[in-house]
Amino acid sequence: MISLRCSAPSSTADHETLTDPTRDSNPNVLASRYASPAVRSVWSDEGKVRLERRLWIAVLKAQADLGIEVPAGAVEACEAVADRVDLASIRRRELRTRHDVKARIEEFCALAGHEQIHKGMTSRDLTDNVEQFQVLTSIGLLAAKYAHLLDRLRGRALEWRDLPVVARTHHAAAQPTTMGKRLAAYGEEMLIAFRRLESLAASYPLRGLQGAVGTALDQLTLFGGEADRVEELQDRVRVHLGFAARLDAVGQVYPRGLDFEVVSCLYQMGGGIANLARTLRLMAGAEAATEGFARGQVGSSAMPHKMNTRSAERINGLQVVLGGYVHMLGGLVGDQWFEGDVSCSVVRRVALPDSCLAFDGLLETALHVVDDMGVYEVALARELERYLPFLATTTLLMESLRRGGGREEVHEAIREHAVAAALALREQGATENDLVQRLGGDDRVPLSTAEIEDLLSRGADFVGLAVEQVDRFSRRVDDVVARWPAAAEIEKGRLL
Amino acid sequence: MISLRCSAPSSTADHETLTDPTRDSNPNVLASRYASPAVRSVWSDEGKVRLERRLWIAVLKAQADLGIEVPAGAVEACEAVADRVDLASIRRRELRTRHDVKARIEEFCALAGHEQIHKGMTSRDLTDNVEQFQVLTSIGLLAAKYAHLLDRLRGRALEWRDLPVVARTHHAAAQPTTMGKRLAAYGEEMLIAFRRLESLAASYPLRGLQGAVGTALDQLTLFGGEADRVEELQDRVRVHLGFAARLDAVGQVYPRGLDFEVVSCLYQMGGGIANLARTLRLMAGAEAATEGFARGQVGSSAMPHKMNTRSAERINGLQVVLGGYVHMLGGLVGDQWFEGDVSCSVVRRVALPDSCLAFDGLLETALHVVDDMGVYEVALARELERYLPFLATTTLLMESLRRGGGREEVHEAIREHAVAAALALREQGATENDLVQRLGGDDRVPLSTAEIEDLLSRGADFVGLAVEQVDRFSRRVDDVVARWPAAAEIEKGRLL
Amino acid sequence: MISLRCSAPSSTADHETLTDPTRDSNPNVLASRYASPAVRSVWSDEGKVRLERRLWIAVLKAQADLGIEVPAGAVEACEAVADRVDLASIRRRELRTRHDVKARIEEFCALAGHEQIHKGMTSRDLTDNVEQFQVLTSIGLLAAKYAHLLDRLRGRALEWRDLPVVARTHHAAAQPTTMGKRLAAYGEEMLIAFRRLESLAASYPLRGLQGAVGTALDQLTLFGGEADRVEELQDRVRVHLGFAARLDAVGQVYPRGLDFEVVSCLYQMGGGIANLARTLRLMAGAEAATEGFARGQVGSSAMPHKMNTRSAERINGLQVVLGGYVHMLGGLVGDQWFEGDVSCSVVRRVALPDSCLAFDGLLETALHVVDDMGVYEVALARELERYLPFLATTTLLMESLRRGGGREEVHEAIREHAVAAALALREQGATENDLVQRLGGDDRVPLSTAEIEDLLSRGADFVGLAVEQVDRFSRRVDDVVARWPAAAEIEKGRLL
Amino acid sequence: MISLRCSAPSSTADHETLTDPTRDSNPNVLASRYASPAVRSVWSDEGKVRLERRLWIAVLKAQADLGIEVPAGAVEACEAVADRVDLASIRRRELRTRHDVKARIEEFCALAGHEQIHKGMTSRDLTDNVEQFQVLTSIGLLAAKYAHLLDRLRGRALEWRDLPVVARTHHAAAQPTTMGKRLAAYGEEMLIAFRRLESLAASYPLRGLQGAVGTALDQLTLFGGEADRVEELQDRVRVHLGFAARLDAVGQVYPRGLDFEVVSCLYQMGGGIANLARTLRLMAGAEAATEGFARGQVGSSAMPHKMNTRSAERINGLQVVLGGYVHMLGGLVGDQWFEGDVSCSVVRRVALPDSCLAFDGLLETALHVVDDMGVYEVALARELERYLPFLATTTLLMESLRRGGGREEVHEAIREHAVAAALALREQGATENDLVQRLGGDDRVPLSTAEIEDLLSRGADFVGLAVEQVDRFSRRVDDVVARWPAAAEIEKGRLL
Repeated sequence: MISLRCSAPSSTADHETLTDPTRDSNPNVLASRYASPAVRSVWSDEGKVRLERRLWIAVLKAQADLGIEVPAGAVEACEAVADRVDLASIRRRELRTRHDVKARIEEFCALAGHEQIHKGMTSRDLTDNVEQFQVLTSIGLLAAKYAHLLDRLRGRALEWRDLPVVARTHHAAAQPTTMGKRLAAYGEEMLIAFRRLESLAASYPLRGLQGAVGTALDQLTLFGGEADRVEELQDRVRVHLGFAARLDAVGQVYPRGLDFEVVSCLYQMGGGIANLARTLRLMAGAEAATEGFARGQVGSSAMPHKMNTRSAERINGLQVVLGGYVHMLGGLVGDQWFEGDVSCSVVRRVALPDSCLAFDGLLETALHVVDDMGVYEVALARELERYLPFLATTTLLMESLRRGGGREEVHEAIREHAVAAALALREQGATENDLVQRLGGDDRVPLSTAEIEDLLSRGADFVGLAVEQVDRFSRRVDDVVARWPAAAEIEKGRLL
Repeated sequence: MISLRCSAPSSTADHETLTDPTRDSNPNVLASRYASPAVRSVWSDEGKVRLERRLWIAVLKAQADLGIEVPAGAVEACEAVADRVDLASIRRRELRTRHDVKARIEEFCALAGHEQIHKGMTSRDLTDNVEQFQVLTSIGLLAAKYAHLLDRLRGRALEWRDLPVVARTHHAAAQPTTMGKRLAAYGEEMLIAFRRLESLAASYPLRGLQGAVGTALDQLTLFGGEADRVEELQDRVRVHLGFAARLDAVGQVYPRGLDFEVVSCLYQMGGGIANLARTLRLMAGAEAATEGFARGQVGSSAMPHKMNTRSAERINGLQVVLGGYVHMLGGLVGDQWFEGDVSCSVVRRVALPDSCLAFDGLLETALHVVDDMGVYEVALARELERYLPFLATTTLLMESLRRGGGREEVHEAIREHAVAAALALREQGATENDLVQRLGGDDRVPLSTAEIEDLLSRGADFVGLAVEQVDRFSRRVDDVVARWPAAAEIEKGRLL
Repeated sequence: MISLRCSAPSSTADHETLTDPTRDSNPNVLASRYASPAVRSVWSDEGKVRLERRLWIAVLKAQADLGIEVPAGAVEACEAVADRVDLASIRRRELRTRHDVKARIEEFCALAGHEQIHKGMTSRDLTDNVEQFQVLTSIGLLAAKYAHLLDRLRGRALEWRDLPVVARTHHAAAQPTTMGKRLAAYGEEMLIAFRRLESLAASYPLRGLQGAVGTALDQLTLFGGEADRVEELQDRVRVHLGFAARLDAVGQVYPRGLDFEVVSCLYQMGGGIANLARTLRLMAGAEAATEGFARGQVGSSAMPHKMNTRSAERINGLQVVLGGYVHMLGGLVGDQWFEGDVSCSVVRRVALPDSCLAFDGLLETALHVVDDMGVYEVALARELERYLPFLATTTLLMESLRRGGGREEVHEAIREHAVAAALALREQGATENDLVQRLGGDDRVPLSTAEIEDLLSRGADFVGLAVEQVDRFSRRVDDVVARWPAAAEIEKGRLL
Repeated sequence: MISLRCSAPSSTADHETLTDPTRDSNPNVLASRYASPAVRSVWSDEGKVRLERRLWIAVLKAQADLGIEVPAGAVEACEAVADRVDLASIRRRELRTRHDVKARIEEFCALAGHEQIHKGMTSRDLTDNVEQFQVLTSIGLLAAKYAHLLDRLRGRALEWRDLPVVARTHHAAAQPTTMGKRLAAYGEEMLIAFRRLESLAASYPLRGLQGAVGTALDQLTLFGGEADRVEELQDRVRVHLGFAARLDAVGQVYPRGLDFEVVSCLYQMGGGIANLARTLRLMAGAEAATEGFARGQVGSSAMPHKMNTRSAERINGLQVVLGGYVHMLGGLVGDQWFEGDVSCSVVRRVALPDSCLAFDGLLETALHVVDDMGVYEVALARELERYLPFLATTTLLMESLRRGGGREEVHEAIREHAVAAALALREQGATENDLVQRLGGDDRVPLSTAEIEDLLSRGADFVGLAVEQVDRFSRRVDDVVARWPAAAEIEKGRLL
């Protein structure tokens, strides 16, 4: 005996989601507020329909070439209507068939006037490959935009290549560097992450038409058991879709670790940008930089001093959002049952588009920040003035020894005066660091105030290899830009 | 000298997102495919506008009551138009003012014909409180649905209260239990998590009108420095919005740990449901259960045997999705700068609605699974038959000793035969467990085959307190249902 | 036919981990560097053995009370040796039996000279309950320490209750507040999180002796089927171990959502502390605060200005570490198969102790920071001086109107001068904000420089309810301290 | 005036952690229970000291080669004592100096009798590079072990290359495949992930001796401003330590995204293994496979049927643990302030060793599972027998048409009988699938029972390209093994 209960679906409580999505007022906020039209389009409902049709046509062509009978004109008929997307019509078909893939097959066949597509294919042969196509297309778009961002960042680094600033570690002044070098360091972090995406783009493998459990049984049957022709079919489809590699032994689905690889790569790529954004927020709080107000521009009439780093904050926020998608797609890694299950379905439906949209939004925002950010040179110079005497004590010691000072005596003098100068600044609120005067006036130190000031004025000596590092960074960006000519055509959108 | 560069926004590359969102084909998939209309509405663009207006009206009324001059009819005029939401008009205003809150103030004032709202308020006084209102409203809706789900689950547990099944640990047969007890255990896990939500609903504190940095300066100024009246205002707003508690010492924003508290609570609440779904998937694979096919129903004409547990898989998937939002909102905990910053802005814009929508979708799906799931009693009985002799060996040993058997001798006999029976089943593929016959025929064991079979037939003795536990679980659900009368009115939607 | 391969374990490659752990040079770094002896002891190898023995004795006593025959003196004998822990001896037994629980049973029995413990219990009846005991004990220790930390924080908030500082949002000056209020806001965040831990401590339920699959079959058999006595046994064990509640319908294990509840609660509790630490790091970078250098103390002789906020950084780091354990234990939620499996085993073995140790380390560090932190009042005053004129423009406008100024005229004058003053500061590097002088000298504004200065000097008027909020916070801490008398005895350890 | 409070550290409450770690009873459980001696050693306290000394010696040699004066015999003296590690002595020095790096410098110098090391280096020049060295060394060890695991897995795949099994999707029977192909698919997932580790090993860049803020100022000063020689020094150190690449523009630390890259790569590498483990657990529950009992072996005398997949569960558990470290190291990405801060310090101290130890433990466990797992061929054959008639209906239809059957008529007959057969199995508990007999006896179907049975007996026709895929997988493993000769020497340890 079997125990079963069956509920009659309550039609009144029906979600009505199939009826009219155009009245939807729950838009995908990452798409509608942050991402660019190009990436949005890859993941839009229409975009997906178009990409599916491109896949079907590619398969059909390859099958025809390899001897499967396809009526004359069928391919052309499909191509002619491939971009005619009527979501409402598809929706009506889905309401009738209760099967989304079947609805889209029917619609396309009806438009083309031929029932030739989807031969020897299962639903996953369609959807998994299209999703990989969406991923690869997104990777291409995002890579070009990233290369463009690197190019712009390099421009700012060169602009500030020699501008000395106080480098900070643990948020405290540590040694001088240059503003250009600061940017170059974030840029180098971006370059490291970018090599991962480039390597991924070059090797990201397509699952292919492997059938219900990955043995390609249906295509093999279609081709009368001729494995070579199935192999050739797979390869043509791969080439047609622009993939450099192909998976071989798979199950119903491609390994979900690949999705994790993509999103964890995007997350890593966000790191250097997020570091730049965070440091910019820190500098802005000290009124040493701005993320993008024009000269003479101010916050608002009521609060002219308040120039919030909204875009930099958004970058940091989007990086956290991206981390959530790393978590989701990481949750699918190692969670497959047998040849594949789809507890991954809803996860990927959310995390694949939303991670690409979030990262695209991050890049769009970063393009504005990098182009528009500015530094307040007076503030930077004052900071350097305040700390340079402290940062240069090692040099002063060595110079004193060269002039015959006694090591212990000079060392003790420096220590005493440095402590006194630091406490004067911090606790008594002295506005000027008087360490130079103190040392110049102490007989134990064989340097006059003027000599010390002269030493300190040679700021370039204190920034080590900073300038060379900027130049080398710039040359590495040259290579990137050369590899990604599409980068040159990127135009950033307007921020909301 | 200041270094600044300013980019002219490229109007051609404008995202156009402000122009016509109704043509958006990137809908929020959690809203459009999984969530119920009620929760969707809380987080929809229109819903937010309505909630904001309710807050403004509540503040305005309280201010009027407490002596702030408000023209006669202003409150009523506002109330009359509160539900007249024209997103396109608001959008046009935003395009002009470049400020979303200002646009919505203007729109509401124009509709009402009064400029009385938002007095002494900052943008965050509006948005943070409205978001908390959305959260609390969602909590209420989700709690009632959860209580309803517990009620339905209890019904199935009572239905199968006495049905003996093989309990498994490490996926291997361990001891008998009952199917009702299995459900009750998942239900108890849900009850534990639910007490957290109930406690949260009862104590979730409103930030209130605390101004730009949390000192309530602007309201205090409005009320001429009378702190008591500001206090009274705060309390009236709290009561009006249905909050049980109020925050006091805050900054610009309420502590983001509260968002993490909500979403981590939802995640925990999903645990028992996800365990049920996972176990159902396991049982379905062994053809011992189904997630919801009617008696006599089959998969498809081509694959009648294949009854995928799509809904159970969806539940497990949505739990992973929810985990991603736990990650995002967890990323805001402890990341505040001074009195508050908004790197949280985009994170909360994504994670607050999407976590509520995802959990709502999980509950909707679970309502179907719990109502529609069935068990195949023949398969369960056969499994019990196969393993019960093994599971009962301790009892057989004790019974043998009672009848005068020698401990060592009986123990050795049981061991020998159990090993042989297990290997016969596993390696030789015997279809029946012959341990009973083996023991009945061994002289060392003072029990006949019939006596052993009689012992094993008293299945109820082997399920321990399972039945009582189901009854106690049911009584605890009574309490929950009594506390949440709204649960009785929940009607589940139709699954996509 | 069966296909099996069996490897002979290579004894030479044996990990030797069982041989001599005292030579281990991979200590648990959270225990050895950050946590306190008390929490470390709860999770140490010896500590666990002691807790297990306390559980066995509690069960034995209860069984004896309820009629199970226990030889005279057996309980006392067990109690006498309960703290005699010889890990090496246990290890030798484990090497022989290849079963860790069995080894510990044997050792304890041998020491006591009685074989009475573990009657009617399975391994999980021991380990799951002991782990819950470890968790509850840790919760108690951490709660007391947290209450103590709140008490100390309140002390500093009262100390700086009236000290005006510039409140910042988006890292930019927004409105004045007081330093005490700043601390109170972080403290309030801590209070909110603490109510969760208190509620958890009061309701955290013990799994109890429910046997292999949760039906209590073995205890029921031991008590001859008398369910009431089993119930009574369970309750005595619960009371003995100090739990307020008990689970009823469980499987082999207690719901793993409970572990997630604990660690997500700790994570939330870390939020307010981490916000404080982060803000302190920000203030230290502006030389407005220090995390703990004594007056007159400096960084090092070479770098006297460099006072790294190492402890505050450690707090932020430990919060990230804690997030990792939230992830791990979150990964067990909803991942149970049937009545329980142990893919959770290694996860809990890592994440339960390490999350408690990490949070304990965070609290230890925070106790130092809260006690030792200081502010540089000169710097704070200078910051206020710089920004107050901007922050007070609304007040100046209202005051001007009261004195007969024309709204538009005054508004325009303020806007012009504010912009000029802001640009002078930021771009020309003026060291003083001359807005007061500008306004005082402008005929459109009916206020003299002296009058404006007088207005600005009434700083207390600009901090709104900050001071009252500190006082109310202090009173709420009174309640906490009253509820946790153990807090008074906490002594922080020395930081490494 | 400055407000400061300073606490006297309470010596009685001192954590005593510096006194005697050898008595530590909080061992790192990942090291002591799961990891191999080789990886443990890399991350042990002694191991770190040894690696630091190797770095110091490498730098010293390179400096000497490049013209810095180093006394004769100093290098040799250092080398002679490099492995003489006395942790207790170092600890005593640290207690005195309160500086861990200084303590280790002193100890090494004292042992060597020369004070030549650490010239021009900062603490981070030592620790960051050594940590990268530990990472790269771990990568090498883990890569070789992974290659070895792939080799063993390939062996099992070839062993079961032709063994037909029912492939499952959504946990339901879908189409036949072979057991070897099932393993090959998990293996292919491993291969994909492994290319990432190989690429990382080949490009993982060393930070180098870049000084306090990344400008190499101190080395540049040491070399009298000769940038070329500094460059040469950097390169020699890189080569000496075995790194293929070097970072250029960095700050105080190398980009923490690199740590995330490593651990996310390990996580992805665990995916295929975790899928195998999960599927093995599923198969074991159906008594179709075992993770490692020898033929004829059984669970225990009391429970001979119960063969828990403890090791497979452990693999799944360690993957979750690894996910926690992905979270931790992900939390450092994009969180740098200026040229670097160390809120990362405690995070990396925990997550770097523990992720390597966890992954090593996962591999050790997997080596046992892959070597020892077995399948129960009787059970697999019976499953195939049960489902094959359903899985072959498409073929039967096509074959009927070939023999002149009418499409609609045959299709309807198949549908009717398939439904009846499925219901008989599921609801009535029939033990045999009688679809073949039903179809053979139906006149609408032009195939006899014998003919159908003959068709079904040609199982190889139903597995598509499964066998070829196994062979191709094996060839790809050949390439891996050739690239990692060290793999051949791996010997797995004994599991605890």
